[in-house]
Amino acid sequence: MGTQTKPAQFGVVGMGVMGASLALNIADHGFSVAVWDRHPEAIAKVQKENPKQALAGYPELEAFVSGLERPRRILLMITAGSPVDEMMARLFPLLSPGDVIMDAGNSWYLDTRRREALCKEKGFHFLGIGVSGGEEGARNGPSIMPGGPKDAYALVQPVLEAIAARSEEGLCVTHVGPEGAGHFVKMVHNGIEYADMQLLAETYDVLHRGLGLDTATLADLFSKWNEGIAESFLLETTIKVLRKRDPETGKPLVDMVLDKAGQKGTGKWTVKVALDKGVPVPSIASALDARNLSSQKEDRVAASKKLHGPSVSLSSEEQQQLAQWAHDALYAARVVTYAQGMRLIQAASDEYKWGVSLAEMARIWRGGCIIRAKLLTPLREAFQQQPALPNLMVSEAFAPVLEKLAPSWRKLLGTATKLGIPVPVFSSSLAYLDSYRSPELPQNLTQAQRDAFGAHTYQRRDKPDAGFVHSDWLK
Amino acid sequence: MGTQTKPAQFGVVGMGVMGASLALNIADHGFSVAVWDRHPEAIAKVQKENPKQALAGYPELEAFVSGLERPRRILLMITAGSPVDEMMARLFPLLSPGDVIMDAGNSWYLDTRRREALCKEKGFHFLGIGVSGGEEGARNGPSIMPGGPKDAYALVQPVLEAIAARSEEGLCVTHVGPEGAGHFVKMVHNGIEYADMQLLAETYDVLHRGLGLDTATLADLFSKWNEGIAESFLLETTIKVLRKRDPETGKPLVDMVLDKAGQKGTGKWTVKVALDKGVPVPSIASALDARNLSSQKEDRVAASKKLHGPSVSLSSEEQQQLAQWAHDALYAARVVTYAQGMRLIQAASDEYKWGVSLAEMARIWRGGCIIRAKLLTPLREAFQQQPALPNLMVSEAFAPVLEKLAPSWRKLLGTATKLGIPVPVFSSSLAYLDSYRSPELPQNLTQAQRDAFGAHTYQRRDKPDAGFVHSDWLK
Repeated sequence: MGTQTKPAQFGVVGMGVMGASLALNIADHGFSVAVWDRHPEAIAKVQKENPKQALAGYPELEAFVSGLERPRRILLMITAGSPVDEMMARLFPLLSPGDVIMDAGNSWYLDTRRREALCKEKGFHFLGIGVSGGEEGARNGPSIMPGGPKDAYALVQPVLEAIAARSEEGLCVTHVGPEGAGHFVKMVHNGIEYADMQLLAETYDVLHRGLGLDTATLADLFSKWNEGIAESFLLETTIKVLRKRDPETGKPLVDMVLDKAGQKGTGKWTVKVALDKGVPVPSIASALDARNLSSQKEDRVAASKKLHGPSVSLSSEEQQQLAQWAHDALYAARVVTYAQGMRLIQAASDEYKWGVSLAEMARIWRGGCIIRAKLLTPLREAFQQQPALPNLMVSEAFAPVLEKLAPSWRKLLGTATKLGIPVPVFSSSLAYLDSYRSPELPQNLTQAQRDAFGAHTYQRRDKPDAGFVHSDWLK
Repeated sequence: MGTQTKPAQFGVVGMGVMGASLALNIADHGFSVAVWDRHPEAIAKVQKENPKQALAGYPELEAFVSGLERPRRILLMITAGSPVDEMMARLFPLLSPGDVIMDAGNSWYLDTRRREALCKEKGFHFLGIGVSGGEEGARNGPSIMPGGPKDAYALVQPVLEAIAARSEEGLCVTHVGPEGAGHFVKMVHNGIEYADMQLLAETYDVLHRGLGLDTATLADLFSKWNEGIAESFLLETTIKVLRKRDPETGKPLVDMVLDKAGQKGTGKWTVKVALDKGVPVPSIASALDARNLSSQKEDRVAASKKLHGPSVSLSSEEQQQLAQWAHDALYAARVVTYAQGMRLIQAASDEYKWGVSLAEMARIWRGGCIIRAKLLTPLREAFQQQPALPNLMVSEAFAPVLEKLAPSWRKLLGTATKLGIPVPVFSSSLAYLDSYRSPELPQNLTQAQRDAFGAHTYQRRDKPDAGFVHSDWLK
């Protein structure tokens, strides 16, 4: 453990992979950093492995806090939930008015709201900060989504700006909004990530299982795609994953991975919040379902013996065109997925009066984070041109693209349906698009049924402003 | 207001449509009934309109409670939520040990659990009772789903059995299980109802908008369907709705109904609970989304001018076969919807050790309730034969049916996709079926990606029991 006489400019609590990476990233940018962890050996390990960065480590929390320049800037990178509350309770007696606590975990945004209010009462500042990019992002430049009071943000802005990723559109950090805005946006970012990953999985499945392409051919195909509009970090990761060989068997390593996907809280939170706000996010919801269904591996294997799929073969048009259809569908469905996520952020921003700029969110996601993609450039422009856009899909930039690509998407879906290959996110996303662009939907029947058996009343099409009426449908 | 000297055998609180109908139903079966409402005029109205049933009405709650035979049996049919807690607090000081409070509203099952525990502490019984069938069911025979202590159920069983619907498979009431089991099952019943209604709406849309059938032709077609395996209360209601003429314009009344569908809490609850329990219910979730999207009417009308759909025409095979495909798909998708709902009930029953019999649930839904359907007879048999069935879809009764009908379903979905008519529940249900019967899903790629960018680790296919491993995918 080292100590230093001069107070450190920044403190990081939690020396797990993400906390350590952020601390090193901050130190790399010329700030003196003090670190603390409830396990002193975690501090020692980081210090030992990174002698150049000279992190000041303290076994005692009191000494760590005393060793910080005032106003203190303390970033927590610890498990979300009650550990954050417990850590804050330990810090409170040690802090001075005006000190800033930052929670950089994936916290529930309403907890962030509550914690900010609690800190305000006690004279401290609180920021809820979404950080995306995994270990590599944290170490070399993440996308950072800070929420909380603007004056508190000003106190940490130089540090966050120094460590954030940079894209051709600038620094991947901005003040998202007050209260839990940062954590809300990070949660939706993760929801979009779920859908985006599932779209890639479905694309892979249709081309692998349906068209019979092997992993090497798929990696080559996706590499070509990644040079065009479909470029994204997740597509790039897919290519690397497909190219990786298993050292044990020499086979493609992806073939050795069990098809049971786990999930953490943020995807589920996104869907639940969306339900509460009445904002449909079917692409994210069906991606979550896909992971849950994948985890029922034993049931699926048993079911496959009872429920046989179709035995059909592809037409020569399908054989020749399927890859192109998949490319087009992937891009279009991704637009629809982002449209849902952006709509959800807008709904929360309106409700809580956060004033989140969707254009700025697209900009700070352009680098560093998991969902960074070329697509975010026109997406940002769409919201810059029309900040009050009701839905990304109807923007001047994307409506023509969706119209152009939809025929391929329909073909892909038709082929997958015929083959019996499930494409839940491709299909729920298309249903969303087709519903949203339908001036008439069949819920007139639904409303009539509800009025018929439950006297729920309905509005008349010719007099929508005349209020709700009831009819006796059964006579 | 009338009073009576002999204590009444049963008390009903809440003289809204449902409460009044249940009170009259109970009185019809020879039980003396006392009623109370916070609005005395509601009591007077029911009494005046139903002189034969001689309901004993009390303007004062104290007199109402005193006027009941002991142990008192008091059924609340009031707004779910805090009004139930408030009513219980008013009743507690007036009750005697052993009295029974029944909550027959659509209460959240965890509230029911809490209320039962509270009543137990105070020496009272509490039952949470799901009631389905709308006004007509409540008046002439609903499906009743009571949950709570078995000894409390025994005290009200004769009354509930007297008023319940009867089907060829017996009385549509049984003790569902302890605690909130009754309200949980009712909630899932409503979730299934959402999906079932949406399937009918999608069927109507494809045949109306896609095939061009008018309402009279559709009513005739559906009437034929309703004589076969597709028979259900909701299909019957659809037929009646389609045949109803608007007295004002002479047109089919359904055409005059605005296509904005509302929703109440139980559908949303079902989806949220399912998310928490990790049990996918995509058919119910997408039905909820469809209602929410329908309510964005103004946005949809605006979007329809920016996002144009495909202009294609049906092949002659499609023209000739579409109605049959829709029939088959409707039945198969309904099976899949019930499979999801039953799976969710089973998961809750396992978690809370409720011991719910799915076969019995199918039996008590066979009459009286909104989702009553011929399908419930083989469904009941499937769970009778295999109570531990992992999923209805793999039962001896339904697996061959699904296999037989799936080709039609695929054709229907293909046609709707081509036409640009959204069929979210048909498509999410098929994705569920195709996922569940897939021994291999592409989540190996998902897990590899998660390990590549987030070090989330994965299991190997060849050594699933060896635990979670991490690879460096990027080198």
